[in-house]
Amino acid sequence: MHPARRIRDGLVMKKSKSNRKREQSSRTIPQSSRNRVAFAEAAACLVEIGKGFHARGWVLGTSGNFSAVISHEPLRLAITSTGLDKGCLTPAQFLEMDEAANVIRGDGRPSAEALLHLAIACGVDTGAILHTHSVWSTVLSGSHASQGGIALEGYEMLKGLEGVRTHKHREWLPILENSQDMVELGKRVSNTLRQSPGIHGFLLRGHGLYTWGTGLQEAKRHVEILEFLMEVLVRSGAA
Amino acid sequence: MHPARRIRDGLVMKKSKSNRKREQSSRTIPQSSRNRVAFAEAAACLVEIGKGFHARGWVLGTSGNFSAVISHEPLRLAITSTGLDKGCLTPAQFLEMDEAANVIRGDGRPSAEALLHLAIACGVDTGAILHTHSVWSTVLSGSHASQGGIALEGYEMLKGLEGVRTHKHREWLPILENSQDMVELGKRVSNTLRQSPGIHGFLLRGHGLYTWGTGLQEAKRHVEILEFLMEVLVRSGAA
Amino acid sequence: MHPARRIRDGLVMKKSKSNRKREQSSRTIPQSSRNRVAFAEAAACLVEIGKGFHARGWVLGTSGNFSAVISHEPLRLAITSTGLDKGCLTPAQFLEMDEAANVIRGDGRPSAEALLHLAIACGVDTGAILHTHSVWSTVLSGSHASQGGIALEGYEMLKGLEGVRTHKHREWLPILENSQDMVELGKRVSNTLRQSPGIHGFLLRGHGLYTWGTGLQEAKRHVEILEFLMEVLVRSGAA
Amino acid sequence: MHPARRIRDGLVMKKSKSNRKREQSSRTIPQSSRNRVAFAEAAACLVEIGKGFHARGWVLGTSGNFSAVISHEPLRLAITSTGLDKGCLTPAQFLEMDEAANVIRGDGRPSAEALLHLAIACGVDTGAILHTHSVWSTVLSGSHASQGGIALEGYEMLKGLEGVRTHKHREWLPILENSQDMVELGKRVSNTLRQSPGIHGFLLRGHGLYTWGTGLQEAKRHVEILEFLMEVLVRSGAA
Repeated sequence: MHPARRIRDGLVMKKSKSNRKREQSSRTIPQSSRNRVAFAEAAACLVEIGKGFHARGWVLGTSGNFSAVISHEPLRLAITSTGLDKGCLTPAQFLEMDEAANVIRGDGRPSAEALLHLAIACGVDTGAILHTHSVWSTVLSGSHASQGGIALEGYEMLKGLEGVRTHKHREWLPILENSQDMVELGKRVSNTLRQSPGIHGFLLRGHGLYTWGTGLQEAKRHVEILEFLMEVLVRSGAA
Repeated sequence: MHPARRIRDGLVMKKSKSNRKREQSSRTIPQSSRNRVAFAEAAACLVEIGKGFHARGWVLGTSGNFSAVISHEPLRLAITSTGLDKGCLTPAQFLEMDEAANVIRGDGRPSAEALLHLAIACGVDTGAILHTHSVWSTVLSGSHASQGGIALEGYEMLKGLEGVRTHKHREWLPILENSQDMVELGKRVSNTLRQSPGIHGFLLRGHGLYTWGTGLQEAKRHVEILEFLMEVLVRSGAA
Repeated sequence: MHPARRIRDGLVMKKSKSNRKREQSSRTIPQSSRNRVAFAEAAACLVEIGKGFHARGWVLGTSGNFSAVISHEPLRLAITSTGLDKGCLTPAQFLEMDEAANVIRGDGRPSAEALLHLAIACGVDTGAILHTHSVWSTVLSGSHASQGGIALEGYEMLKGLEGVRTHKHREWLPILENSQDMVELGKRVSNTLRQSPGIHGFLLRGHGLYTWGTGLQEAKRHVEILEFLMEVLVRSGAA
Repeated sequence: MHPARRIRDGLVMKKSKSNRKREQSSRTIPQSSRNRVAFAEAAACLVEIGKGFHARGWVLGTSGNFSAVISHEPLRLAITSTGLDKGCLTPAQFLEMDEAANVIRGDGRPSAEALLHLAIACGVDTGAILHTHSVWSTVLSGSHASQGGIALEGYEMLKGLEGVRTHKHREWLPILENSQDMVELGKRVSNTLRQSPGIHGFLLRGHGLYTWGTGLQEAKRHVEILEFLMEVLVRSGAA
């Protein structure tokens, strides 16, 4: 399911012809060294993303959490420790986590929602997963909960979502009921990803947005686009 | 009521095993020196907090005031002088104040609301007290005054409040009628804290939020969480 | 009407005992030198104020203008040239203007609204005049125009206005019909100041806020307070 | 239609007496060198404009695009490449484009909407074209689509639009139906500019604002003014 990947946007990307040669030479570099570099690049990039999101009010308190896939086989995520102020993260506050949520590198516990990151990393072909917790998503996930999701259609901004070519695209943003049982919630996330293969994100009710992308820059772009569109809906009187 | 505490987050914290040893050696350091260090650390931290809150519009004009408990026995607070722009505080603008609101260190008068800080410091087990004055709290404390408070329930963000484990938690945010008689208002604050032992903050009508925490970082987190939830309520049409 | 004043907050302030001595020695310094220093201090301070207000969206486009009284007898104002981006002012973009709106120092034309600044400087005992042009004042000055003004009452924030001691204070913020005839509008401003001696500011319909203070810091505080309260009114559904 | 122009605001401006002399001496400088300088100045200026607009939420995701006319005869635009984060542009991400949308300088593809920039550059006498994509324009372009545009009248802020002398001016902001067929949409833009010669901008439905100016500073001013007025309309309940 996850083809071999390489670093892009400080993260991993699909094999391409132009990368074949570099890959062959890098086979002499052990996996652990490559992971260490990818981990450091992802952490540095997420420090900046956290600062920007905090300034916009999208990760207040200790809400939100961020991860980046630094290796696909075996699966390894760089992920924020639990309970941190996302406005002033440091690289030392990131952990390397394996597919069973064990900590491979770094001190601290992974966020309680690490299991959701793993469910997403296993369910879609992605290199980065960002969870924000804005006022707009909190309002809309409550007002639209009974409809099971939010339809976004007719907005040029949709074209910023990977693979979307026209504003006539209809994006479905599912709303999942919130839960403190992460194993159970993780299964519902996996089911949602299977049942709605084309989606770019989902909401947890009263809890915010999960979105992802091939790399961190794409995931950040998806956050900005979906947060923008949710703000448009609320200001248009949809909530 | 207030166990011996030590510095944490630039403030005081509960005794822990790991601190016993350090404490024994620090017993040779006189209380006044320890207070001076705690005072300087608290002031430096509050300068940054003030800058951030001012940028968000939570302490405009000369509204808001901040304090940190730098000693529990005897009670000593580092507190902002009255009438200052919280966006550009300097360490020299903080005072050390005893439990009778006398100034022990620094030039200037304590904020008129110093008595409320003392009422809180004596009423709950806390190391830092932050008062913000946002548009959201001003709107909600007016619209909900007749109900005596605001119920916050069903939001994941509640889990950022110390001791809260689930979004199903129901947080009660009392609203007290505003007054210029600080002795009388201080008594009502003390009563509120006795009658509602589990609360994390309260509103003064037309006057903003008081919240607190074990240390400054926790108090700052509580501000962000409660301000966020009040904004959610107003934008959901609750005001 | 205008007592002798001296520099405070980079501006002029009332004579006080502690200043008597300094004043006597400074009598040997010629007026022009003292004006030059006051002018430079006011310009430097207004550059920073402009940057902050622009970031908040209170002086977009080339809206807004700022002045500081650098001498009362004869009357001299440091004032922004016309047509400037207030987010990136430089000291060279300020003019010194006399009571007849003649330019005494600097290149450029004074703002079209310089006559309103002069009307205020002559009508109230002030050292600084700030005009902002926010969304909130634009909305409210339209919705409340038929009532001739806006009553602000019951807000603790009112206590940040000079001389106000309680949230029970009722502040009247007059709304004047807008005009491009500055001589005519200046007369209406003068009349308003005579008829409502206790006010701290007024609105021009569809055009924003004028407020003032003893010094620039007080005027800035008044802007923050009045803008805050107007935002509260709009968000409370008053518009 | 396009008189010879020279650099102003880092862009081109109309011939003036004071520039005659400089121009004669610069005739010895080849056109390509002058274009290179104008291109570099425009790119540097647009990097800053992009940063500011992104902070305000006006160009989230990869939305928005910017261009500057660096030569009128023949027509040459400096324009952002497609698919970029406007909050962290670099000079290397700009292209020089001719009147047929061919890339003359730089790597990358022009934005899909380059044809609209060309339609504007050919339809009005302008030196810079800015496209923003705010929440306010998205909301209003939907709510007012059936009326074909938005009338802005009675606002002092209108006087910041080039050539407007009074708040009584009535500015018509046309709304064009959005399309992915840029050739067809470009023709509709050209028609709109012909039919409404005095306008300062237009909206694409669900897609944001296009505005322009003699130079980049004037175009930036027009963005701030039109975005401000759209926010006023939405907050006044017009949407």
